[in-house]
Amino acid sequence: MQRRKFIQAATGAAAAAVLTAPAQAAALPNLTWRVASSFPKSLDTLYGGLEQFAKRVAEITDGKFIIRTFPAGELVPAFQVLDAVQNGTIEMGHSATYLYFGKDTALTFETCAPFGLNSRQQTAWYDAGGGSELCKELLKDYGVTSLPAGNTGCQMGGWFRKEIKSVEDLVGLKMRVGGFAGRIMQKLGVVPQQIPAGDIYPSLEKGTIDAAEFVGPYDDEKLGFERVAPYYYSPGWWETGSQVSLLIGLKHWDSLPNAYRAALTAAAYETHVSVQSKYDVRNPQALARLLKRGTKLRAFPQSVMDACAKATAEIMQEESAKNPQFKKLFTHYQRFQNEQNQWYSVAEARMQNFQINALKTASRK
Amino acid sequence: MQRRKFIQAATGAAAAAVLTAPAQAAALPNLTWRVASSFPKSLDTLYGGLEQFAKRVAEITDGKFIIRTFPAGELVPAFQVLDAVQNGTIEMGHSATYLYFGKDTALTFETCAPFGLNSRQQTAWYDAGGGSELCKELLKDYGVTSLPAGNTGCQMGGWFRKEIKSVEDLVGLKMRVGGFAGRIMQKLGVVPQQIPAGDIYPSLEKGTIDAAEFVGPYDDEKLGFERVAPYYYSPGWWETGSQVSLLIGLKHWDSLPNAYRAALTAAAYETHVSVQSKYDVRNPQALARLLKRGTKLRAFPQSVMDACAKATAEIMQEESAKNPQFKKLFTHYQRFQNEQNQWYSVAEARMQNFQINALKTASRK
Repeated sequence: MQRRKFIQAATGAAAAAVLTAPAQAAALPNLTWRVASSFPKSLDTLYGGLEQFAKRVAEITDGKFIIRTFPAGELVPAFQVLDAVQNGTIEMGHSATYLYFGKDTALTFETCAPFGLNSRQQTAWYDAGGGSELCKELLKDYGVTSLPAGNTGCQMGGWFRKEIKSVEDLVGLKMRVGGFAGRIMQKLGVVPQQIPAGDIYPSLEKGTIDAAEFVGPYDDEKLGFERVAPYYYSPGWWETGSQVSLLIGLKHWDSLPNAYRAALTAAAYETHVSVQSKYDVRNPQALARLLKRGTKLRAFPQSVMDACAKATAEIMQEESAKNPQFKKLFTHYQRFQNEQNQWYSVAEARMQNFQINALKTASRK
Repeated sequence: MQRRKFIQAATGAAAAAVLTAPAQAAALPNLTWRVASSFPKSLDTLYGGLEQFAKRVAEITDGKFIIRTFPAGELVPAFQVLDAVQNGTIEMGHSATYLYFGKDTALTFETCAPFGLNSRQQTAWYDAGGGSELCKELLKDYGVTSLPAGNTGCQMGGWFRKEIKSVEDLVGLKMRVGGFAGRIMQKLGVVPQQIPAGDIYPSLEKGTIDAAEFVGPYDDEKLGFERVAPYYYSPGWWETGSQVSLLIGLKHWDSLPNAYRAALTAAAYETHVSVQSKYDVRNPQALARLLKRGTKLRAFPQSVMDACAKATAEIMQEESAKNPQFKKLFTHYQRFQNEQNQWYSVAEARMQNFQINALKTASRK
């Protein structure tokens, strides 16, 4: 009897413990995952974000969940990260979904869209505006889910050997510009070129190409474009706030204890903040250095911006007609964007423009 | 010998285990902390952020680290959260440091400054621009450290019974506006009033006050101001991007295992993103409803903005002369802001203005 009572009491206590803290019943497992990035180490703000993420996950899990990071090309070619996660070669990828727009043009929206949301708006759409649900639904077809892991902010419009003064100046222009942006510019007569980052400089120098877009001042600076294509244009309307994604094999994600899913999520969001913050700190300083070295800063003329926006709207319509997934995401994204722009016109943009004008006035004195 | 060899081997293995995963030696402790907020439950975007944070910490730590959340007034009065953390009544507070500017005016910068950084810039300054180091140095005097836990974005300029058409219209205006903004407006003849949120509506209705600022459309909507003060002004130049802080007793922070400090940090950053995202989703929708109910949207005239900016610059100088800590933070903050505004004028603001103008043109068609 004594023994039976003891067993009953022990079972009761165990049951109570299970009710209050079910997950503590089993110790959390030791795990090692491999994550392949689409970005090289030289893009240190992006790749540094991945390293920060992995470090944070290890810290949070007390060294139990180790994520080993690999830059582009080490485990997997840069543009095959989604495939590698899909076929289970790696548990996780660090990439941008728009790189895979050849598979499905709707994959662009998790990263950005031309004439799209700014960095904060993209995050709001993704995090609280219904965007992540739509994007994840899309990735499900590849057996993948995602977390946000940074944003570059609005990128620059690239480096040009000659000034762009009108829409006509775009005709026949050989420009290193990829994906969606290339397709839009084709409408305006640009001849888009796909060239790896390391080959841009010699191509501009030799005149094999007339222009090249890359990222923003901090990343561009390292490649020295100002020496061979001094006109640095803004804004990069095709990347108004490009989000980086962690792509996780659903099979692996689903097999994780809840605590590890929570750890990955929180660490990803921290990285998401820090990557944008680092770009924000580094870009203005890099731009100042570039200007000292003779970079000639230019803005695309209004006529060029208008023509690009028109071509974009046409492509978005064409794509919506072809791809129902694209249409679904674009419709949702566009409605959100209109709301955001209306709201930004009230307080954010008004405040921002006041500040910028005040600074210009002060610097003229 | 055999036994000695075995012990040596075992010790070697243990030593190796310690080297690779030192923290796993001791199991992580069960902890319960209490966090008091300066915000009521009715400010559900802010307070909801705190609840999300506590939930995430519990998930990450597998139910071991429980953070109990208390809205303003339940454990501690709204404006005494810093004091309660300082004197050890609670382990953590959820507040905004500018509420304590009576103790030290330099505490304003962790939240915002008048004519200051926008939300993303504030985050960049704090996270990667050296801001958090300066702010934490200041909080150290109170035995406190901090983590970011949200931002409201640029707030609105408040509700006015009559239109503000010139600087003269501010003279004698009784306005519910607190802290730093109140002091600046006093320079322009405004009579600042300190009134709890619940008393604003009857005060406006009776005409005891002429105007009141609160937060933005989503929070303001609940209080029904449009019925008694229909002119809704923008922008809230005194809160251009107000950051929420988690304030943690240093004694408690230092006693935490590294894994828990990492968990709190990552969860705080996730909350930081989500609070801003929720405001961004909710504010435009609330503004649309307010406009349908007769709210008259107005912008402060350029002359009023200029006068307020001038008064702000004077106060910032006066305060810098009085308080060396304020001077140190303001100098750092202002240099960062100038860099940011220069950079935003190149790509971000240009892109934003293009989008807003395109939307306006489209809606006129």
